[in-house]
Amino acid sequence: MEPRRYAILGSGALGGYYGARLARHGCEVHFLMRSDFDHAQRYGLTVESIDGDLSIPADQLHAYRDVADMPPCNIVCVCAKTTANDQLAPLIPRVLADDGVVVMIQNGLNIEPPIGERVGHDRVYGALAFLCSNRVGPAHIRHLDYGKLTISKHTADGEPGGVDDVMRAIIGDFENAGLPMQPLGDLVGARWRKLVWNVPYNGLSVVLDTETDALMDNPDARALVVALMEEVLAGAASQGRVIEPAFVQQMLDHTARMAPYRTSMKIDADEKRPMEVESIFGEPIRAAAAAGVDLAKMAAVYRQLKFIDARNAGPRGW
Amino acid sequence: MEPRRYAILGSGALGGYYGARLARHGCEVHFLMRSDFDHAQRYGLTVESIDGDLSIPADQLHAYRDVADMPPCNIVCVCAKTTANDQLAPLIPRVLADDGVVVMIQNGLNIEPPIGERVGHDRVYGALAFLCSNRVGPAHIRHLDYGKLTISKHTADGEPGGVDDVMRAIIGDFENAGLPMQPLGDLVGARWRKLVWNVPYNGLSVVLDTETDALMDNPDARALVVALMEEVLAGAASQGRVIEPAFVQQMLDHTARMAPYRTSMKIDADEKRPMEVESIFGEPIRAAAAAGVDLAKMAAVYRQLKFIDARNAGPRGW
Repeated sequence: MEPRRYAILGSGALGGYYGARLARHGCEVHFLMRSDFDHAQRYGLTVESIDGDLSIPADQLHAYRDVADMPPCNIVCVCAKTTANDQLAPLIPRVLADDGVVVMIQNGLNIEPPIGERVGHDRVYGALAFLCSNRVGPAHIRHLDYGKLTISKHTADGEPGGVDDVMRAIIGDFENAGLPMQPLGDLVGARWRKLVWNVPYNGLSVVLDTETDALMDNPDARALVVALMEEVLAGAASQGRVIEPAFVQQMLDHTARMAPYRTSMKIDADEKRPMEVESIFGEPIRAAAAAGVDLAKMAAVYRQLKFIDARNAGPRGW
Repeated sequence: MEPRRYAILGSGALGGYYGARLARHGCEVHFLMRSDFDHAQRYGLTVESIDGDLSIPADQLHAYRDVADMPPCNIVCVCAKTTANDQLAPLIPRVLADDGVVVMIQNGLNIEPPIGERVGHDRVYGALAFLCSNRVGPAHIRHLDYGKLTISKHTADGEPGGVDDVMRAIIGDFENAGLPMQPLGDLVGARWRKLVWNVPYNGLSVVLDTETDALMDNPDARALVVALMEEVLAGAASQGRVIEPAFVQQMLDHTARMAPYRTSMKIDADEKRPMEVESIFGEPIRAAAAAGVDLAKMAAVYRQLKFIDARNAGPRGW
């Protein structure tokens, strides 16, 4: 797997940012684009970043509208929203080199199993991005804050997969591009841990039509944030993943220090795009329920989000 | 207590409608008004009703801006929103005749105890109105549907108070005015029973910015409606009030047959008026919690409503 060739499936706020950094630092990166393809082919890919602006000129950018035109890649990074996974999954084998692996850089739970069934579970990794980044125009990304990643190995049975040479190689490429990446042995645990933030802030920002600062300032909203975080901990525990109770307070303190932030799910709702309701709410609720644990408040917010998602999908009777 | 003189405290969609009917049918009715006083004094009180329009001309209308100007009344009907009770409670003794009683025609739980502490628990009754009525302008009410009432005796310990002569006399006046009124021996049970409808439809119509028909049409919203109704049944059971499970389906069927309806809490939210969050959500949640029963989904919606209520109270930092 030397030299490594990357594919980025979903070249938006997240994939465009990480892909541009990798490409700027010597990796061969191939971007699958949808709506941004025409613009990118003409003007290239532009990233404004707190860590220094960068751009890939059109003549150096490997952009594709169709996965059939892409070369086989060793590392296929899926950076789209999970709502696109049903569409993307069948395309992955067509861009995956014989010795290639897939890295799912997405939020939520149970992201990897359907991909593992297609390409082999031992070829799938899961990554979590701690990144504030927005797409502000066609092939134009604004990286606002953070950026570090974790990476973990997927396993067919969900047990911790440890750290292997493929992960080390990927980490090397990312860190070489100025992107800190930490290996975590337990993917499922890492995904639950990230849900502690994503569940309350993504869910409530949509249902209550607000941003993180208002959720922290209002005592009732804050109490519900805490209650939802505690349900995520209960859900994690039901899967044998113990998250220390102090983590709740850490997330609150962290969010209180952040600038007012419009969550990714809120942006999707505002843009009337499908929200990641199933991966962030549905999957954890169902996993906990299968273990006999009722995440009741999460279930209430889940139903509310599904209602809003259906309304945003628009025109029906209502 | 013969002849009976009525006071209506809170002469809006509910109090204006019932008071006008009583006045039209021979009762002496005195209306406490706030913002509508000037208009009513000049033009009278107008009610459009599916059961026949009626109006009280200005020269026949006993309207007051100040409770100090009202005569002692035998039956003081509190028809305002529960959010006004802290303001209204001190005024009640000033309009209550020596042999008079108070009837709280309001939604929610634990409405009567604070009034009973002021005037004596054996002088307080609770009523529930099954009424679709809106205030459409100053001293102008539109009665859209339904209208029947129940009445029950409050007791200091919350035990069923049975039926007494005062209730029978009030029922006689209401029925004489074309307003069916049913005596129920158990006030607390009656209040829980009404919450089965009020909790899901009032709460979710506000949080999801919608009306009853959309909540019935969307399978996720409907599932959450059912889950909230079942929590109300669990709450009632925690207070020794058994509501038959079939009542949930009856309420769903009933609502599905209704015309699309904007709930009273939704109207309050839209008008940026305080919502009855405490009497409809807070009190039942706390009563159940005191009995060891966690109404988790109701608690989530409660926090959401409190957030929206605070935002509507406006201008703060957010």
